[in-house]
Amino acid sequence: MARFLKKREESQGLAPGSLVFIGSKKTKHIHIRVIDYDQKKFDESELKNIKDGTVFKETNTVTWINVDGLHDLKVMKEIGDSFDIHPLLMEDILNTGQRPKLEEFDDCIFIVLKMLRHDKKKPIIISEQLSLVLGKTFLITFQEQPGDVFEPVRERIRKQKGRIRSAGIDYLAYALLDIVVDNYIHIIEGMGEQIEDLEEDVLNNPESSVMEKINNFKREMNFLRKLIRPAREAIAQLSKTDSELIHEDTLPFLKDLLDHITQAVEAIDTYRDMLSDELNIYNSTISNRMNDVMKVLTIFAAIFIPLTFIAGIYGTNFEYLPELHFKYSYFIFWGFLVLVAIVMLAFFKKKKWL
Amino acid sequence: MARFLKKREESQGLAPGSLVFIGSKKTKHIHIRVIDYDQKKFDESELKNIKDGTVFKETNTVTWINVDGLHDLKVMKEIGDSFDIHPLLMEDILNTGQRPKLEEFDDCIFIVLKMLRHDKKKPIIISEQLSLVLGKTFLITFQEQPGDVFEPVRERIRKQKGRIRSAGIDYLAYALLDIVVDNYIHIIEGMGEQIEDLEEDVLNNPESSVMEKINNFKREMNFLRKLIRPAREAIAQLSKTDSELIHEDTLPFLKDLLDHITQAVEAIDTYRDMLSDELNIYNSTISNRMNDVMKVLTIFAAIFIPLTFIAGIYGTNFEYLPELHFKYSYFIFWGFLVLVAIVMLAFFKKKKWL
Amino acid sequence: MARFLKKREESQGLAPGSLVFIGSKKTKHIHIRVIDYDQKKFDESELKNIKDGTVFKETNTVTWINVDGLHDLKVMKEIGDSFDIHPLLMEDILNTGQRPKLEEFDDCIFIVLKMLRHDKKKPIIISEQLSLVLGKTFLITFQEQPGDVFEPVRERIRKQKGRIRSAGIDYLAYALLDIVVDNYIHIIEGMGEQIEDLEEDVLNNPESSVMEKINNFKREMNFLRKLIRPAREAIAQLSKTDSELIHEDTLPFLKDLLDHITQAVEAIDTYRDMLSDELNIYNSTISNRMNDVMKVLTIFAAIFIPLTFIAGIYGTNFEYLPELHFKYSYFIFWGFLVLVAIVMLAFFKKKKWL
Amino acid sequence: MARFLKKREESQGLAPGSLVFIGSKKTKHIHIRVIDYDQKKFDESELKNIKDGTVFKETNTVTWINVDGLHDLKVMKEIGDSFDIHPLLMEDILNTGQRPKLEEFDDCIFIVLKMLRHDKKKPIIISEQLSLVLGKTFLITFQEQPGDVFEPVRERIRKQKGRIRSAGIDYLAYALLDIVVDNYIHIIEGMGEQIEDLEEDVLNNPESSVMEKINNFKREMNFLRKLIRPAREAIAQLSKTDSELIHEDTLPFLKDLLDHITQAVEAIDTYRDMLSDELNIYNSTISNRMNDVMKVLTIFAAIFIPLTFIAGIYGTNFEYLPELHFKYSYFIFWGFLVLVAIVMLAFFKKKKWL
Amino acid sequence: MARFLKKREESQGLAPGSLVFIGSKKTKHIHIRVIDYDQKKFDESELKNIKDGTVFKETNTVTWINVDGLHDLKVMKEIGDSFDIHPLLMEDILNTGQRPKLEEFDDCIFIVLKMLRHDKKKPIIISEQLSLVLGKTFLITFQEQPGDVFEPVRERIRKQKGRIRSAGIDYLAYALLDIVVDNYIHIIEGMGEQIEDLEEDVLNNPESSVMEKINNFKREMNFLRKLIRPAREAIAQLSKTDSELIHEDTLPFLKDLLDHITQAVEAIDTYRDMLSDELNIYNSTISNRMNDVMKVLTIFAAIFIPLTFIAGIYGTNFEYLPELHFKYSYFIFWGFLVLVAIVMLAFFKKKKWL
Repeated sequence: MARFLKKREESQGLAPGSLVFIGSKKTKHIHIRVIDYDQKKFDESELKNIKDGTVFKETNTVTWINVDGLHDLKVMKEIGDSFDIHPLLMEDILNTGQRPKLEEFDDCIFIVLKMLRHDKKKPIIISEQLSLVLGKTFLITFQEQPGDVFEPVRERIRKQKGRIRSAGIDYLAYALLDIVVDNYIHIIEGMGEQIEDLEEDVLNNPESSVMEKINNFKREMNFLRKLIRPAREAIAQLSKTDSELIHEDTLPFLKDLLDHITQAVEAIDTYRDMLSDELNIYNSTISNRMNDVMKVLTIFAAIFIPLTFIAGIYGTNFEYLPELHFKYSYFIFWGFLVLVAIVMLAFFKKKKWL
Repeated sequence: MARFLKKREESQGLAPGSLVFIGSKKTKHIHIRVIDYDQKKFDESELKNIKDGTVFKETNTVTWINVDGLHDLKVMKEIGDSFDIHPLLMEDILNTGQRPKLEEFDDCIFIVLKMLRHDKKKPIIISEQLSLVLGKTFLITFQEQPGDVFEPVRERIRKQKGRIRSAGIDYLAYALLDIVVDNYIHIIEGMGEQIEDLEEDVLNNPESSVMEKINNFKREMNFLRKLIRPAREAIAQLSKTDSELIHEDTLPFLKDLLDHITQAVEAIDTYRDMLSDELNIYNSTISNRMNDVMKVLTIFAAIFIPLTFIAGIYGTNFEYLPELHFKYSYFIFWGFLVLVAIVMLAFFKKKKWL
Repeated sequence: MARFLKKREESQGLAPGSLVFIGSKKTKHIHIRVIDYDQKKFDESELKNIKDGTVFKETNTVTWINVDGLHDLKVMKEIGDSFDIHPLLMEDILNTGQRPKLEEFDDCIFIVLKMLRHDKKKPIIISEQLSLVLGKTFLITFQEQPGDVFEPVRERIRKQKGRIRSAGIDYLAYALLDIVVDNYIHIIEGMGEQIEDLEEDVLNNPESSVMEKINNFKREMNFLRKLIRPAREAIAQLSKTDSELIHEDTLPFLKDLLDHITQAVEAIDTYRDMLSDELNIYNSTISNRMNDVMKVLTIFAAIFIPLTFIAGIYGTNFEYLPELHFKYSYFIFWGFLVLVAIVMLAFFKKKKWL
Repeated sequence: MARFLKKREESQGLAPGSLVFIGSKKTKHIHIRVIDYDQKKFDESELKNIKDGTVFKETNTVTWINVDGLHDLKVMKEIGDSFDIHPLLMEDILNTGQRPKLEEFDDCIFIVLKMLRHDKKKPIIISEQLSLVLGKTFLITFQEQPGDVFEPVRERIRKQKGRIRSAGIDYLAYALLDIVVDNYIHIIEGMGEQIEDLEEDVLNNPESSVMEKINNFKREMNFLRKLIRPAREAIAQLSKTDSELIHEDTLPFLKDLLDHITQAVEAIDTYRDMLSDELNIYNSTISNRMNDVMKVLTIFAAIFIPLTFIAGIYGTNFEYLPELHFKYSYFIFWGFLVLVAIVMLAFFKKKKWL
Repeated sequence: MARFLKKREESQGLAPGSLVFIGSKKTKHIHIRVIDYDQKKFDESELKNIKDGTVFKETNTVTWINVDGLHDLKVMKEIGDSFDIHPLLMEDILNTGQRPKLEEFDDCIFIVLKMLRHDKKKPIIISEQLSLVLGKTFLITFQEQPGDVFEPVRERIRKQKGRIRSAGIDYLAYALLDIVVDNYIHIIEGMGEQIEDLEEDVLNNPESSVMEKINNFKREMNFLRKLIRPAREAIAQLSKTDSELIHEDTLPFLKDLLDHITQAVEAIDTYRDMLSDELNIYNSTISNRMNDVMKVLTIFAAIFIPLTFIAGIYGTNFEYLPELHFKYSYFIFWGFLVLVAIVMLAFFKKKKWL
């Protein structure tokens, strides 16, 4: 399957706003988990029915509704209806090939990002779509499957670490984005280390496996770049927003976040350059080696081919071949061979091939 | 014929606004089909005479007039006159080498796009020009030949699926653009899959046919890029328009459309990069192989050329050649040959050529 | 002579505004031709003396004064003085190495463009400078030599084709620019066809003449780009002008013109990319061929060198060489040779060299 | 460790604003040194306790507090609290992988830069983070370890050289930035000289050690670019600031500083281009050499292989081989060999291989 | 010495505004020459003492003070003080590694440019810094050494050619800039001609000296680009200035100047592209040649190696070797050899190697 562009076959020609799940079904059931808190109160539960969640729309507490799994269209439609999410947004949420972006509305902010992780078998990065719908009193997050990087945030909420319990819903959204971006940096850093190490191998051990590795990294860096650059744009937009949904004292945090993701984007560009350089070195090294091989061949050929020719001369059966009958011919012959060899070696020495 | 720039020979030097058909005649007759509907009413018919269509200019229903075939200048002129289309616009419609673009006027919006499909014989993409003239109560679409990707939209109109019957003429235009863009993504995605698969071949099977494939894809990607990038610009312009012809509730749909075509443009860029990388890998692999070939040659030559020389020595017919007469000369000779061979092999082992 | 930058030796150090002809004198006499018309009247004549032309400054008819040849400084100075053209403009007109540009003044618009044609002998494009001075009632065009692409426009004026006779002086200027740009497209299209055809040759017939052709086209495309890109800028500026000299109903035509030249610029970029790709293919194909050559060499060498060595062994004249005396030695020897050859061939088969 | 992106492992998932030291501990204790001066007064001392420093917040003298070492979180927190530095700023100060940047607040300006120096052992550049917090009456600088390039500034303060004692706190900040940028230029200039010298080696002595050097420089130039370009942005921002903390008469100095760092950035780009060119020359030279090697091989092989074959013919033991029995056969044979050799040499001469 | 970045060793750590001469001392004494004129009056003299020059500050005549030599700090300081030039400007004037730039102040405009000329010995361009300080009634120019390109301007002033005597001080500055830019074009044009000629050599005579030349030109073009691009920016800024020091009727001349330098910058880019193309052609041609060499080698080897082997067979001394004893063996043997050679040649013909 084309990893850089998700198939949309089923959706082609459908009325826009029709809900279609585009992606591969990664979970059996849809799980809906609610965390509801303010400075004093804390509540964590699993929802059987999304309608039970609509009560949170009215309360002033911070409510985080996390949805794992997107393939059940009926449930998804219920969620959309319950929380007044525009059908086009729901379509975006279900299309897991969505480009990272941010959209601002009067009553909500919509963010799509990708969560990344290494594949367990192949040396590739797997992306999972994360959609956030940030309303006035609630934050809904949609993931393709259970398991995420948000556990530290949940822990901070549960244990009242830092300012998260006293801050609003926008700070919660920031905290989630922050951990996603931290994870980007972690992944890039891990690959970066390997890329920097490759340089040694390229010079000393230019096997085709090294080239394969370089090209794998290159492809993955392109993949990351394609996902993280628009994410950077989205976060830049968020950090400059004048939406009422974002409080002024959250803005410095968003700016800090923008710094981090900018660093990630720049690191990707740096590593891409480095990989290109490594490929160039690889090719130069291969050329160098071929040159060495050629030199050895040429030295052997140039020394022994004339010698063999001379030996061939005295192997002919001409009846009248005077040299054959002189007493010291054989030794003179040897002397001449040695002389030729020495002259050739001197010639190669002069050419700096030895 | 130059596929990237259409010949304009006949038009050279003509007065601007003169109607000239630039392209290849792909259909015999011009077909004009009208679909006229509102929330209650639905009517579909073929027009013999374009003048019959002018009644729709006054009605409040949504009227979609589709014209297949552009080569009959008389008919085209009639259409232009009947619907007050500016001669320069008609000239653009007839010039099938037109660059995708959007032009806004007080009473109409003019859009030129390309519809794409695979050629049946050669691995190239064929483009067909689609022009839309969006008036207050009618939408006229011009195609070069019958057969298009709009059938699902017609179906949705006929069967009252989605909001299309209740929405206005601008939504109809959007629906058509949407299906064209969906088709772009479908075509790019199909090629993308093949491009991603090529990477394997490049590493394991670097034949010149692989290079040819890569270059074909590269050319096609350039071709797509040339058509889709200006289309993106046109749609971006449309999604920001303040023309009265576009209702405010159609704007989110246009923004969604912009998202899709942006994704298409980015995917093209990604695949272009990937193809460049694949070409680099191809070249490196070829170099690597040549290196291997050289090594084998050098090993054989370097081992056997000296040996042959030694054998040549004892093939000479010198009268006085003492070694020939010793009893064990032949075996010592063999021993020496083996020794030379072993030394050479050790040398190559050390050089890591074996 | 440097084709990409005209020598200015004589002008160096002169006072700015001094009239110096920079270029090569291409005509003997300066010809001044006047076409004067309005909707009813039409007059065409050759001027002996430029002063006779000043009457047209006052009339309300459209007057087109075409000057062929620039080298006669006295005549040029008279023209400048008669029509109040600023000395710096006159200097620009005479400097045939001028960059295409547009300059707006209160009472005139000044445009410099290049007219292009193929050289008759060498595969290069020749440029000739065209300067337009657009006043309120007159248009003066300056060319380096007689012979131009404007004949169709003159024909349209004479025969009252299209709207040219009823439109103003700005429309005439547009008509001339339009025909120049049409000619650009014609020339690019002609080269483009050849460039697209080259691709076949590159793959099947990679001779150095192909490379030479590619590089010729590349150089010419760079040459065109250098002339057409600033021309595009000039036309873009003209199509957005608010000068009183350009009537509002000419603007759509100028926008159309901008579309055309944009298409030309994009086609140049596309062909440049295509040529780069072709060069890459050329280089890859050469590498591929060298690889094939190497394989053939290696196969021959690797098979016959060991065999020759074995034959050499039994060509030695050792007195005691037991195998020589066995009855079937010769046939066993042949069998062994065949065996070695088969083993080698199998080895190359496995390496996929055969 | 990835030099281009600092590991953030410990910080992942922590509450934003939590103080975590990211970097390697380079000093044992944290040293805090205070220089306090105005036009008349001068005072220099080491602080045991940061709280003693808070008195300077109120005075009107210029106070420069320099902190060497960042790893002691307790001390850092005290500093932050004493001088009202926002926790996010403190986090940035402690994260030594910070991107150079400038942030303006009402009561302070925050600048992060990198100080550079050559590593003592390896040919790489080491960066050390420098953070400046510029308040109304104090300037706090944070360094990772003792030892810096600021000694000349201290000397100028002590000896009342130049205008530094009479200027304000903003001028002090400028003086520090200026010396850091001077050091950038010094380092780039040192590498630049070596890079310019490399060109000779590349042409005359294309060993793989030269390629290694080129690639080292390339990597270091990328490293410098990554640090200096954002620093340039920060200084550009500072030179355009309208913050009250920067007096108007300091602005020309900042503009001058911007000139210097712009020069540094441009020099880096120039040297990067030069290195790319050198790599190309290297590769071309290697190809050239291989070509030479091949020619020698081919000349030897093409001359002696046919000769050896001819000698082989007359080494056969055919019973009836007429030439063997002619008297002058051997001399005719030699003459023929010489003729073949001459023909071959003439052929190579014509091909310009000799 | 690094030509692309001037050493600043002595200045490192000095107070900004301290006068330090950065460059190499190129003249013994500092010469100060004054030209003072208006429409009627003309005066030319050499100043012994700069203080004598201050009288010109008050007069209404146009005063041009030219200073040759910058190394005498005492004199420079006097000049700065006498004409109220800001210490930072004086520092820039003395730093001959300054980047071309323009700075506007209320009472003066400061411009730094480079004058270029060919080195007499090496194929490199030498730059000399030219600083202009344009005040209300005087223009001071600073050069590193005597000898410049301004003689034609002086001549025009002396002989009252053109409008220079009647125009103001700004026109004088323009005239000087114009002649500097003319010189740029002259130098680029001279190199451009050689670059265009190189193309022939690259195809027909690809020796390493050609590559060296290409790389020299490339380096020089980079050098020019580094100096002329910022100069273009400075002139663009000047042509858009609203400073009172520049009269309105000088602006068209400055715009003309901008045209010229833009042309220079574009020519540099064109030649850089051309040089890159030439390098590519060079490399392709080398590959092609190597291919040819390989083919010759392979053809010789592939034809003669099997033949030699066959000859070797019949050179063996097997006792029982039936063919040796047939009467026509030798002729059959020859026939077989010829046959093998023909087959091989046919094979190579088919492969298009012949």
